[in-house]
Amino acid sequence: MTRRDAVIRAEAAGALTLSDARRLRADRARQVADVLRRQVLYGEFRSGALPAEADLVREFGTSRNAVRDALDLLRAEGLVERCPGVGTLAVAEKYPHGLERLLGLAETLREHGEVTNEVRTTGLIAPSREISSRLRLPEGEPVVYVERIRRLNGLPLSLDLTYLARDLGEPLLGEDLAHNDIFVLLERIAGQPLGRAEVTLEAVNADPHSAATLDAPRGTALLMVERLTHLADGRPVDLEFIRFRGDRITMSGSMHRS
Amino acid sequence: MTRRDAVIRAEAAGALTLSDARRLRADRARQVADVLRRQVLYGEFRSGALPAEADLVREFGTSRNAVRDALDLLRAEGLVERCPGVGTLAVAEKYPHGLERLLGLAETLREHGEVTNEVRTTGLIAPSREISSRLRLPEGEPVVYVERIRRLNGLPLSLDLTYLARDLGEPLLGEDLAHNDIFVLLERIAGQPLGRAEVTLEAVNADPHSAATLDAPRGTALLMVERLTHLADGRPVDLEFIRFRGDRITMSGSMHRS
Repeated sequence: MTRRDAVIRAEAAGALTLSDARRLRADRARQVADVLRRQVLYGEFRSGALPAEADLVREFGTSRNAVRDALDLLRAEGLVERCPGVGTLAVAEKYPHGLERLLGLAETLREHGEVTNEVRTTGLIAPSREISSRLRLPEGEPVVYVERIRRLNGLPLSLDLTYLARDLGEPLLGEDLAHNDIFVLLERIAGQPLGRAEVTLEAVNADPHSAATLDAPRGTALLMVERLTHLADGRPVDLEFIRFRGDRITMSGSMHRS
Repeated sequence: MTRRDAVIRAEAAGALTLSDARRLRADRARQVADVLRRQVLYGEFRSGALPAEADLVREFGTSRNAVRDALDLLRAEGLVERCPGVGTLAVAEKYPHGLERLLGLAETLREHGEVTNEVRTTGLIAPSREISSRLRLPEGEPVVYVERIRRLNGLPLSLDLTYLARDLGEPLLGEDLAHNDIFVLLERIAGQPLGRAEVTLEAVNADPHSAATLDAPRGTALLMVERLTHLADGRPVDLEFIRFRGDRITMSGSMHRS
């Protein structure tokens, strides 16, 4: 019994209705695109080429139009490109970032290449009350501010705005910020490991200036991360606002029911 | 000593350079917007009104132009609105979703209101090899497919495409899917709790059809979640592709260094 036969048999049995026929082509395209997206991102098409359209039609049991629409969706996301005479090629470079262990970007992406940081701004600044309060500093206490564009193998991944407690931030500014994660430097300066971080993730459309800074199209989807990192002793020392290019990064981890 | 004096003193001491003056107005606007964004989202402006521009200029120690640009950025994200004669009002409705405990949407957002689900499609389908493989099913084994628009207090939050192992999925289709999380129903049918889920998050721009389905502007940033959920006994039974409207949801949790 083929897969399709099994479905038709189940449908004929009347227990469930196969509503495929009623579904819109766009809905089918989305289903196909979701499955292919993951395969592209996880490098399952080793040769770089996706299966031929006719094979995808058979694999997904759908129409050729829905398969073409699915490939168009992935092309709009920059994950594949259509090459006349060759077919559809996977062109994504999306890198995995863990959600569980607190790691700097260079630590996380070590196997994918070299992370370099363009330091756009550093200095001592008078923080707003909100920043002081989150770093548990008395109002009026200056903090060290660092702004970086972070690249992997030369491609912009993120724009990071970082506020640091002054006693750790001032020595940090004398270090090689272009080639080191701030996390690693902070641990060396503090003489103790980092502990816990509170993280908030959002998807936002890039404003024109942030998009330009990241060499991305205007309005591109950004994975925006706000992260407050504490030393092992519990003191909050590092507050970051990170804009990841959505087309270059995925975050993954495990969740547990209890 | 005021905050600004402290900074000027530090600068004069020559240890650090306050590079504020060299920074672009757009960079300052982004800094201000990042801090205000969080305050808006966490409801810190209880009355709904943000401080007056002059107060923000003082608070952030920046120019009036940078403050105005920051408010424009938040307005473009749909977080605030400018009301002539009143000022700038927080209008965001962004809901927190935990990253740690595996919870259904209704369980997560209980205190924020009622979650209802519009079931767009259900049925037994012949899955692609990728879906079969992730659910550890023999090739050709049909799975149950459920597609839902999920709303909080009537507002669309997400579009969920769900693939379920047949032995649990078929009984599930007889349940009240409009008013129950699939997680809760699965546990009842399986007679055991859920266990672990593997989760991947991305930020993507919505394709036109997904945007229309979620009543969102074309190209809006979506928080795209792929989640494979296992029963407590380890069997993978529920594979979901979830598109959250980026302007309605945040994800938060803790990360640990070791």
